[in-house]
Amino acid sequence: KATDDREHVAQELAKYNLLAIPVVDEKYRLVGIVTYDDAMDVVIEEATEDALRMGAVGTLDESILDAPFATVWRKRAVWLSFLFIAELMTFAAMAHFKDAVDKVLALSFFVPLCISTGGLSGAQAATLITRAVALGHLQPRDWWRVTTHELAMGLVLGLSLGAIGFLQVAVTPSDWLGLEGHQRWLLAVTVSTSVMFICMWGTLVGSLMPLIFQRFGIDPGYASSPFVATFVDVTGIVIFFTVARWILL
Amino acid sequence: KATDDREHVAQELAKYNLLAIPVVDEKYRLVGIVTYDDAMDVVIEEATEDALRMGAVGTLDESILDAPFATVWRKRAVWLSFLFIAELMTFAAMAHFKDAVDKVLALSFFVPLCISTGGLSGAQAATLITRAVALGHLQPRDWWRVTTHELAMGLVLGLSLGAIGFLQVAVTPSDWLGLEGHQRWLLAVTVSTSVMFICMWGTLVGSLMPLIFQRFGIDPGYASSPFVATFVDVTGIVIFFTVARWILL
Repeated sequence: KATDDREHVAQELAKYNLLAIPVVDEKYRLVGIVTYDDAMDVVIEEATEDALRMGAVGTLDESILDAPFATVWRKRAVWLSFLFIAELMTFAAMAHFKDAVDKVLALSFFVPLCISTGGLSGAQAATLITRAVALGHLQPRDWWRVTTHELAMGLVLGLSLGAIGFLQVAVTPSDWLGLEGHQRWLLAVTVSTSVMFICMWGTLVGSLMPLIFQRFGIDPGYASSPFVATFVDVTGIVIFFTVARWILL
Repeated sequence: KATDDREHVAQELAKYNLLAIPVVDEKYRLVGIVTYDDAMDVVIEEATEDALRMGAVGTLDESILDAPFATVWRKRAVWLSFLFIAELMTFAAMAHFKDAVDKVLALSFFVPLCISTGGLSGAQAATLITRAVALGHLQPRDWWRVTTHELAMGLVLGLSLGAIGFLQVAVTPSDWLGLEGHQRWLLAVTVSTSVMFICMWGTLVGSLMPLIFQRFGIDPGYASSPFVATFVDVTGIVIFFTVARWILL
């Protein structure tokens, strides 16, 4: 067990409430021992690492105020810039659909809502699945059960959010939207349909990413919020305007 | 110590590598004992709770695929709907600035980017500070040091992102933007200036929320991503269009 992951060793120790766990080499000769206090330190460190990775900061050993300013800046700037550059794709997506915005200005009012629908549902699914993987409840080979479960979940969650979106358009004064009668109801249908699809898509991506990452030996924690959100933001815009072209334009 | 928080007890045990910690009542009479294995279970449970809270799922005791579908749906739908309704504010903010979008359509292309700038920088700051609070590195009374540190950090991070944003507008063909010469450079300045302000704002809000929450006895974990992001999304739109009115229109 000398080559085992420290996180795994700590999990075993916690599971069986052991005081210590022996460490053996490939011929099962004793080479050392891991005690409960080492294991507890590992559990706390790993939790810190997981939390920092979700906020996309990389690891930071010291207290944030004591660490050198330039070091903290560099670590934060690298992650932020990377995600910001990825987010520039949203600009390209919006510019691609500029005819649609030109025809119905009100479409642009719903873009932030569509983006956040994907981001929120994706982050929620990613968190649940990442944690289930970390606790050993799920393995990559469960991907099909996860897919069907999360598609169904995404559909019912999306229907709930879509209904709220429909209501919002329904109660908004016509002159805010710049649309009359018939057109206004088509906008309501566009918004609720896209919200439903985006929620399903976000949920599916958010739940499968941690499993795919785990399968290829990448820490599933990397699938969490910012990465999933950035990808889902762009696809959310594409889904919204595609639905809009289909129903409204 | 019978009234102490279990997370705090586990922290003490880990810090001093104790095997067990005695529990006493208000007159220091022994009423029980907390052993290292109880403490390790607490550390793992708290890490799960923290992770689930960040993804805004509430707590979930069972494995996600084994828990009843309706229970999981209800827990997820409540959080998602709550955040979705909060996100409807972005629609109101966009509709409020519709004159600006009407004059310069290209402004709407940068809205997702501005929103995500605030969300990403806010989530990063919130994660760092929440974790520093959880590890006992920071207390609410450090708010002033955090404010100055994070304002400076937000400024240098914002300048980095603003520079990237400026470049993006500079290399985009004029006909994509629908703006000529002079106007196009004003748009570049608008985008980079707003990105800088939004990054500072996101960083400041993200870093102070966990301290404020801690001060009022609310778990600082609640300040993480989705809540901060939703608030910062709306203010990001307001900052962007305010800067646009000031520089471009």
